[in-house]
Amino acid sequence: MNQNQLKKLVGKKSVEWVENKMVVGLGTGSTVKFMVDELGRRVKEEKLDIIGVTTSNVTAKQATELGIPLKSVDEVSHIDLTIDGADEISTDFQGIKGGGAALLFEKIVATNSSKNMWIVDESKLVNKLGAFPLPVEVVPYGSQKIFDRFEQNGLNPTFRKKIDGGLLLTDSDNYIIDLHLGTIDHPHELANYLNKQVGVVEHGLFLDTVDTVIVGRQDGPQVLQAH
Amino acid sequence: MNQNQLKKLVGKKSVEWVENKMVVGLGTGSTVKFMVDELGRRVKEEKLDIIGVTTSNVTAKQATELGIPLKSVDEVSHIDLTIDGADEISTDFQGIKGGGAALLFEKIVATNSSKNMWIVDESKLVNKLGAFPLPVEVVPYGSQKIFDRFEQNGLNPTFRKKIDGGLLLTDSDNYIIDLHLGTIDHPHELANYLNKQVGVVEHGLFLDTVDTVIVGRQDGPQVLQAH
Repeated sequence: MNQNQLKKLVGKKSVEWVENKMVVGLGTGSTVKFMVDELGRRVKEEKLDIIGVTTSNVTAKQATELGIPLKSVDEVSHIDLTIDGADEISTDFQGIKGGGAALLFEKIVATNSSKNMWIVDESKLVNKLGAFPLPVEVVPYGSQKIFDRFEQNGLNPTFRKKIDGGLLLTDSDNYIIDLHLGTIDHPHELANYLNKQVGVVEHGLFLDTVDTVIVGRQDGPQVLQAH
Repeated sequence: MNQNQLKKLVGKKSVEWVENKMVVGLGTGSTVKFMVDELGRRVKEEKLDIIGVTTSNVTAKQATELGIPLKSVDEVSHIDLTIDGADEISTDFQGIKGGGAALLFEKIVATNSSKNMWIVDESKLVNKLGAFPLPVEVVPYGSQKIFDRFEQNGLNPTFRKKIDGGLLLTDSDNYIIDLHLGTIDHPHELANYLNKQVGVVEHGLFLDTVDTVIVGRQDGPQVLQAH
């Protein structure tokens, strides 16, 4: 199976955890797209009765077209399960997310979910985080100053650009600075540092967040419990 | 002197610290307005050569009308001195700001300034912070969930409203939640807690920030050095 087939495999598999009457957080990304497709199929064919909470305009559009009822995170009393992708997952179940620039809403939804499941192809599993550039969402005003500070601290920042070369804007009209770190030895320390920086809205370190990971492997989906 | 006269007194006084060729951060608020007026006068009458860096659309408008040259925080290499107001200053020189809803840009400019000066009438000096409601700027998506969490933690939150009753939007299109705390015994701990909350963009605790405070007193302006 190629990478796309592995993504489809775990996307479909994850929907087995969705039960009638659940409030389900819907992530963002190429793997999640397959999950939302399968969820839409169950809503249509099996009359599965759920409410979806989306993390991006892109997923909201897809879910709406598939007939999945949606509410905002502020309109539901709770979220039972959020299913999302991840850009890297370490052996101790810490993650980097935000390759699709939706980290802020993804983290807001994850924080408000009773359970979090990440679905990935096997290429996303790593010993240590950091080969994938760490996305940091920053307020545009002062962003060059934050960039300079990151550079002085050896964090190898680059501004995320659109295909046309302009700076990418998130759904909240902020910029993304990607930190090219190689390896992250102390993710909690780095998260604390980033949380304290004035102008940083959120960062892509998702620590102590995930409960279940489904990995797409050549011999089938593998389910890992984080604890 | 009434409160307005005290504000004018310190606003004028503070401009004595501004020298030719300086890059000056311009805060926001009713006291700062007098400072910007005096700065504009010196630019016009004394040909004072400075660059201003503003913290809000309101101050930018006033400064432009007075002929003060402006640049964004990202267009200057450094800021020599930022002059801003404060809503409360404790005896150990910690502050609460954000009554004017400009705390995010104010903190970004303050963080990038070599020196920070706060100008206040004497009513702003307190033994302990907290009688003034602490403003917290939050991302709209998920803001009701943060509000609920603040409430559960006994932080007495209220959403800041506009005069017409709708929710106030900041210059960055976020909401303000005011925390009615009475007294804040451990401001650094509270700041750490708020920094970690997903969806909190910035908060109004300005800790270890100010260098000089000018207080408007009945017998004249009093200059206090924080260290």
